[in-house]
Amino acid sequence: MKRTRKSSPEPAPLLAFGAHPDDIEFGCGGVVTRETRAGRAAHFVVCSRGEAGSHGTPAQRVAEAKKSAALLGATVEFLKLDGDGRLEVRAAHAIKLARILRRVRPGIVLAPSLEENQHPDHARLGQLVRDAARLARYGGLKELRALPAHAIDQLFFYAVTPEAEPPGAMPILIDVSAPEIIAAWTAAMEAHASQAQTRDYVELQLTRARLRGLRAGVGHAIALFPNDPLVLDSLAQVNRSARRF
Amino acid sequence: MKRTRKSSPEPAPLLAFGAHPDDIEFGCGGVVTRETRAGRAAHFVVCSRGEAGSHGTPAQRVAEAKKSAALLGATVEFLKLDGDGRLEVRAAHAIKLARILRRVRPGIVLAPSLEENQHPDHARLGQLVRDAARLARYGGLKELRALPAHAIDQLFFYAVTPEAEPPGAMPILIDVSAPEIIAAWTAAMEAHASQAQTRDYVELQLTRARLRGLRAGVGHAIALFPNDPLVLDSLAQVNRSARRF
Amino acid sequence: MKRTRKSSPEPAPLLAFGAHPDDIEFGCGGVVTRETRAGRAAHFVVCSRGEAGSHGTPAQRVAEAKKSAALLGATVEFLKLDGDGRLEVRAAHAIKLARILRRVRPGIVLAPSLEENQHPDHARLGQLVRDAARLARYGGLKELRALPAHAIDQLFFYAVTPEAEPPGAMPILIDVSAPEIIAAWTAAMEAHASQAQTRDYVELQLTRARLRGLRAGVGHAIALFPNDPLVLDSLAQVNRSARRF
Amino acid sequence: MKRTRKSSPEPAPLLAFGAHPDDIEFGCGGVVTRETRAGRAAHFVVCSRGEAGSHGTPAQRVAEAKKSAALLGATVEFLKLDGDGRLEVRAAHAIKLARILRRVRPGIVLAPSLEENQHPDHARLGQLVRDAARLARYGGLKELRALPAHAIDQLFFYAVTPEAEPPGAMPILIDVSAPEIIAAWTAAMEAHASQAQTRDYVELQLTRARLRGLRAGVGHAIALFPNDPLVLDSLAQVNRSARRF
Amino acid sequence: MKRTRKSSPEPAPLLAFGAHPDDIEFGCGGVVTRETRAGRAAHFVVCSRGEAGSHGTPAQRVAEAKKSAALLGATVEFLKLDGDGRLEVRAAHAIKLARILRRVRPGIVLAPSLEENQHPDHARLGQLVRDAARLARYGGLKELRALPAHAIDQLFFYAVTPEAEPPGAMPILIDVSAPEIIAAWTAAMEAHASQAQTRDYVELQLTRARLRGLRAGVGHAIALFPNDPLVLDSLAQVNRSARRF
Amino acid sequence: MKRTRKSSPEPAPLLAFGAHPDDIEFGCGGVVTRETRAGRAAHFVVCSRGEAGSHGTPAQRVAEAKKSAALLGATVEFLKLDGDGRLEVRAAHAIKLARILRRVRPGIVLAPSLEENQHPDHARLGQLVRDAARLARYGGLKELRALPAHAIDQLFFYAVTPEAEPPGAMPILIDVSAPEIIAAWTAAMEAHASQAQTRDYVELQLTRARLRGLRAGVGHAIALFPNDPLVLDSLAQVNRSARRF
Repeated sequence: MKRTRKSSPEPAPLLAFGAHPDDIEFGCGGVVTRETRAGRAAHFVVCSRGEAGSHGTPAQRVAEAKKSAALLGATVEFLKLDGDGRLEVRAAHAIKLARILRRVRPGIVLAPSLEENQHPDHARLGQLVRDAARLARYGGLKELRALPAHAIDQLFFYAVTPEAEPPGAMPILIDVSAPEIIAAWTAAMEAHASQAQTRDYVELQLTRARLRGLRAGVGHAIALFPNDPLVLDSLAQVNRSARRF
Repeated sequence: MKRTRKSSPEPAPLLAFGAHPDDIEFGCGGVVTRETRAGRAAHFVVCSRGEAGSHGTPAQRVAEAKKSAALLGATVEFLKLDGDGRLEVRAAHAIKLARILRRVRPGIVLAPSLEENQHPDHARLGQLVRDAARLARYGGLKELRALPAHAIDQLFFYAVTPEAEPPGAMPILIDVSAPEIIAAWTAAMEAHASQAQTRDYVELQLTRARLRGLRAGVGHAIALFPNDPLVLDSLAQVNRSARRF
Repeated sequence: MKRTRKSSPEPAPLLAFGAHPDDIEFGCGGVVTRETRAGRAAHFVVCSRGEAGSHGTPAQRVAEAKKSAALLGATVEFLKLDGDGRLEVRAAHAIKLARILRRVRPGIVLAPSLEENQHPDHARLGQLVRDAARLARYGGLKELRALPAHAIDQLFFYAVTPEAEPPGAMPILIDVSAPEIIAAWTAAMEAHASQAQTRDYVELQLTRARLRGLRAGVGHAIALFPNDPLVLDSLAQVNRSARRF
Repeated sequence: MKRTRKSSPEPAPLLAFGAHPDDIEFGCGGVVTRETRAGRAAHFVVCSRGEAGSHGTPAQRVAEAKKSAALLGATVEFLKLDGDGRLEVRAAHAIKLARILRRVRPGIVLAPSLEENQHPDHARLGQLVRDAARLARYGGLKELRALPAHAIDQLFFYAVTPEAEPPGAMPILIDVSAPEIIAAWTAAMEAHASQAQTRDYVELQLTRARLRGLRAGVGHAIALFPNDPLVLDSLAQVNRSARRF
Repeated sequence: MKRTRKSSPEPAPLLAFGAHPDDIEFGCGGVVTRETRAGRAAHFVVCSRGEAGSHGTPAQRVAEAKKSAALLGATVEFLKLDGDGRLEVRAAHAIKLARILRRVRPGIVLAPSLEENQHPDHARLGQLVRDAARLARYGGLKELRALPAHAIDQLFFYAVTPEAEPPGAMPILIDVSAPEIIAAWTAAMEAHASQAQTRDYVELQLTRARLRGLRAGVGHAIALFPNDPLVLDSLAQVNRSARRF
Repeated sequence: MKRTRKSSPEPAPLLAFGAHPDDIEFGCGGVVTRETRAGRAAHFVVCSRGEAGSHGTPAQRVAEAKKSAALLGATVEFLKLDGDGRLEVRAAHAIKLARILRRVRPGIVLAPSLEENQHPDHARLGQLVRDAARLARYGGLKELRALPAHAIDQLFFYAVTPEAEPPGAMPILIDVSAPEIIAAWTAAMEAHASQAQTRDYVELQLTRARLRGLRAGVGHAIALFPNDPLVLDSLAQVNRSARRF
């Protein structure tokens, strides 16, 4: 399979996967809005309707997710796997996700991190997306043959909560300090109005991003964890680092 | 201290530190030539004259290092610390290196990796450079006051041998596949003619780079290990990853 | 269960498991040929027919695997689990593998490594083999009762690709430098002719083995990762180590 | 430098380094006696006279160490570095140790482990020995030139206490179950009679060895941690592993 | 959900999960008896009847487990999941365990550790219990709605064998030195009389506890591994540490 | 040496070490004030006068440190080692610190963490304190003989910045949510008025503590990292854990 770098005018879309209707927004909404404002298309695949949550009906949750995605400049679809709180690592799920990868043909893919000491749906979805990114490249699964193989550029993991950050792994940090970015991200999180605990969640995320920002010498920053080493043509591509103290 | 990103015409220089006259070339020569060909100035600081080596007089070693640096487009200076095979972690050394950082004012700094199971001078120099990068930013050491404080953009570690790669750390990979890059790098390594073992060393380095390249789907690649998280404005900066199999 | 060390004339057979028809050959074929040439029987269990590969029909893949195994001096059987690209970690699979362990009664077992960031079938098969090695020792599962319990001597993991090597784990290295070993191994890899990508794969494996060899001061070497500590009667058994630089 | 494997009649000697007069005996005395009984010469280098201990004069400690070494079939010498409780990582020390390596020309070297959360002299001596093993191979340090370069076969670390075992590293286990081995080891530990705390220490070491033995299905075993991968000609060399439960 | 600390008279019960009838006793029986003697209720959930063991019928195993639990002052119930040697990580299992958590409403929960290189049922049960502790707190799974949500205070992992201890993780140690604690624990282990291998198992556990005790300066100690950081009001709560050598 | 647990009325003092005049306050001031308000004496040993800082004269720094310590209810002394920015790991320093330990005879000791990627003085002081805690227990160093041996209860590391937190280690969290604790801590940090960068530092620390608090379900919390396992008499001592999301 040929691996050509997308050269500008039309960057390959960003595709983000979430286990629940609000995971993407809370975990990496600021990154998404930053990318869409720079002209990259973004699409969300949400793998449950939050039907096991403490608050909000599935219909409400879906409506909130649509509103929230729109605030970030993204489109959204819902995929039924095993249901909220019930996700298992099944080959059939990975194949379904691989089909979506072949259909959307993203450059960047975002998925929840693999740390197991978090909501079990998160880590399992992360595993499934990683497997799917491999299956999408390989030739022969019969469920995939209708669509041409696709190799993504990079898979990044986001952490829905601080506990979900892989300990010891070095993240890349996306600077989301611009007021319009913070505003759009906050609005997207607040769009999940049914969530009683959301208030704390919003503060949790903004506090995390502020702490990352303080450490990096910027206002706010969001950490992503690359699945594979980055390949660079030049060090000029990465000339800022996060060390202030 | 203000932290401004260098915007193009004149990129901040690259500064590489080596414990012995051939360490930089063997460990990351391909990266240096790639950067100098793209218009970035490069300067080497070599912290011994190889006087404990099995072959070659100090004078020969210095001459070879100068020739080799020139082949990579870099300038070189020699710094006396404790001598070859005798380097210790002393605060006075870190302060000396910090002075050089304030004088050269680099963006990118390259230093040998911190793994202790390699030639002891390598890991100790890596530690000293990391400490120096901090001291160069701080205000008050009297030995440093004559020169204005300087914050580098990023410190990357290179591994002189495979054993020196930090296990479990995710590197960034620099694509050095272009024939002129490989040729310049090979010539620079071969310029260290006095070294009886050099023949194997050259094969070792090219085999390493080829293996990294095969894994990344390019010809050859060199791994660098960032000391701190990279801060990005956009994911468009890092849109290739190293996964081919 | 008594644990007696095999004393020479008839060493207990080696049993290798692969998820796809070419995994064993690419990951550790040189080790297998070295052992069979020293008089140890070797048997392969291949857990799919490669039916999801980009190239080659299942019938071709099976024929190639048989030819390849013969070149390494091994016999081969095929086991149907969930199919290529669909393997899941199921207790029923581990029990099937445990039955094979009780039937073949190997000393050494080789299985793909457990790193999850590789083809998902590989890591899952590795897990299943490890579980099976335990179940084969225990008394009571009814599917196993027809065959006497069996305790293997050691389980070693092989890495199909460099990404599959467990980071930070210290391998043992098998010296495969002898020309006839390299020739047999290369022939076995090339026997998988249907695989369009094979050319690169062969170079990948030989480059890996050469790099390991250069580091160890031999021609070529293959890394295996023991599942449990080795027990030795004397340090005379392990009197070479891999440090050349 | 040529690297020839010792072929039987006269195995290269074992050289063990200890920071205090009883470290070698407590940490790996059972291994030493096993090797000397198999016909390998053993020599101890003790790098202080225990002059900072709570009990026993330096003269007593030296006498006890000599008696203890003799019980294990080893010779012993004392080397003055910085003194008990005062050891620092200095290049001059590593060079002194390298001279001893060139003089004794051992195959196997034993040194205290590198974990820092133990008596500070232990970890520092471990580092110095590792560095010395490198310097002994290299050509040119003027303090070393009088003696020909020497490459050891393997460096193993022993842990004086359980806290000193490197977490996560896989050891090799030496079976020391034979009654005469246990008896000689115990006698050697008890020869350090001045040590008030010795009673507990002896129980500590025998309990450790019994626990390792129970896990491995033998009577008693001692763990050693290799500094570099083992290189094997055949898997027949390592056909027992430590898994009983 | 409100999180109130239990203030004395009636401490919240301890709930321990085991995959086989003797796992809790062997892994952490001394801890349980210590807690019950201090007035805390304890309940065991055993997730198979040991029907795949080498010795003992399911009926015998159940009888032994009941006797053993009584010796430790605990009650016991049996839960059928997939059966001995067949446990899989299924969402339905975690939901069943979450129901038990809502019913028993424990403060402390004990579960087998997550290390995969042990009996596969152990690690999988550990994962299921961790997931269940989360699901028990969340509002909405329909199978759970009949019982009010419950947040446990802390989940601790116990290791059935030394291999099951997570390498590199710092445990907390429970002092079980009192003669009546050791006696009750030993009796509880010996109550599993059908187990041919039990004799060794008892010695294994007492040797482990003695080694932990020797290291900590007490008689015997058992290690537990907390799933989440402990939250303290004051350092006065934790004023002993385990360092004797 | 006898190891008796302090039973209430008069808890053993807390002793905290800092490399610079403001390190203790910024890294763990909230913990100190919590302990002193509960009746425990606290003493600070500051190992430089901040003479290499960008702002503030040594005299100002000393005055600020005294004021700040008083606000936390602690006394303070200054110890001259190598000077600010110049600290080295020397045995003589560890012996000096051990003397202070024997003089103050603390239960709890706080020291900067050992992560090397922070200000070099921090990690080195942490190492020296750990070594000193050992030397204070041992009998014989002549510089120490005038004072009776002393075994501390526990050594905890604090992290001056987030970068200094040991990755992957599980901390204990001290709840510092009470308004009077936050107020005293904030005042103590602000007492270091000469520090131009202090403003950000105060926000950094409060943001860190708020993020820890949000995760733990309390207002604010500070993480400490124990050097050795905690030994408990009962799980009732540790009945809260930090998991809220």
